[in-house]
Amino acid sequence: MKLKPQAITAENFSPFGDLIQTGSDPMIINYGNTERHHDLARLDLTEQGGTPLVSIFRSKPLPLPLTLEVMERHPLASQAFIPMGSEPYLVAVAPAGEFDLKALKLFIVQPGQGVNYHRGTWHHYCLALNSVSDFIVIDRGGDGHNCDEIPLPQPIEVDLSDCAELQD
Amino acid sequence: MKLKPQAITAENFSPFGDLIQTGSDPMIINYGNTERHHDLARLDLTEQGGTPLVSIFRSKPLPLPLTLEVMERHPLASQAFIPMGSEPYLVAVAPAGEFDLKALKLFIVQPGQGVNYHRGTWHHYCLALNSVSDFIVIDRGGDGHNCDEIPLPQPIEVDLSDCAELQD
Repeated sequence: MKLKPQAITAENFSPFGDLIQTGSDPMIINYGNTERHHDLARLDLTEQGGTPLVSIFRSKPLPLPLTLEVMERHPLASQAFIPMGSEPYLVAVAPAGEFDLKALKLFIVQPGQGVNYHRGTWHHYCLALNSVSDFIVIDRGGDGHNCDEIPLPQPIEVDLSDCAELQD
Repeated sequence: MKLKPQAITAENFSPFGDLIQTGSDPMIINYGNTERHHDLARLDLTEQGGTPLVSIFRSKPLPLPLTLEVMERHPLASQAFIPMGSEPYLVAVAPAGEFDLKALKLFIVQPGQGVNYHRGTWHHYCLALNSVSDFIVIDRGGDGHNCDEIPLPQPIEVDLSDCAELQD
């Protein structure tokens, strides 16, 4: 099975989570020097006594051709990834609930855009492109079982031939 | 009164908050493809029914020569700033409690490094350098009085003459 990534939008990503990006209607603060693009994700981090954590994930790109073999979900909390650098990255997701391979979607996300997976959304781990990339991650700390992983019933080959963002 | 920025370190910033940066002892996850630099800041966002928020601040550099005239603090919560771009920025802070001009410190912070002001730490608003800069901000939503601002008893002139990071 092969998948091509599509460009992410707030709308096409909405069944899976929030696209974290600047918008057209910020609050103007700091004496006119700052736009506050306010409250961009539904953080959901305090179930069963959970607490919000901030971490940095430093991810290296997988070898090409890129193949997806596993997916994971967090049953207790959301998880947000926001890039600190200037490279695009990929996001593979499937709806919460019983995993459905036919509903798997693959998005390409631009630098300056983050994603917040809602609780239970199936997703692939960090898929950096081009170079080792740092992401701010906002997720949940605390007790409780908060990660399920499954092998994909068949490996998914990622077709990046249409991605102009990729380095040779 | 004039101040020169000093380079920030986890240690010299510790009276004011956390320096958010990668370290030497990450967790290795995602089948060896990701370093998780875990739980880098003491987020303190749930007092009086508060909830964590994630926002993007887009800040323009103040005109040069740079002068500081006000400071603010958040009595109910921490506030974290993590740059999404590749420019350094400045952080001006003073200890929590009654504002003490003599205890004001000025730091220069590199891209890839964030800061988390602890509850009550006096700080200047976003001080981008070189170009309009985006920051991920993790702070508190909810009711309650969570911002005090004071004018500085005298303006502070910032001496950037030793900052090699600055563009002409």
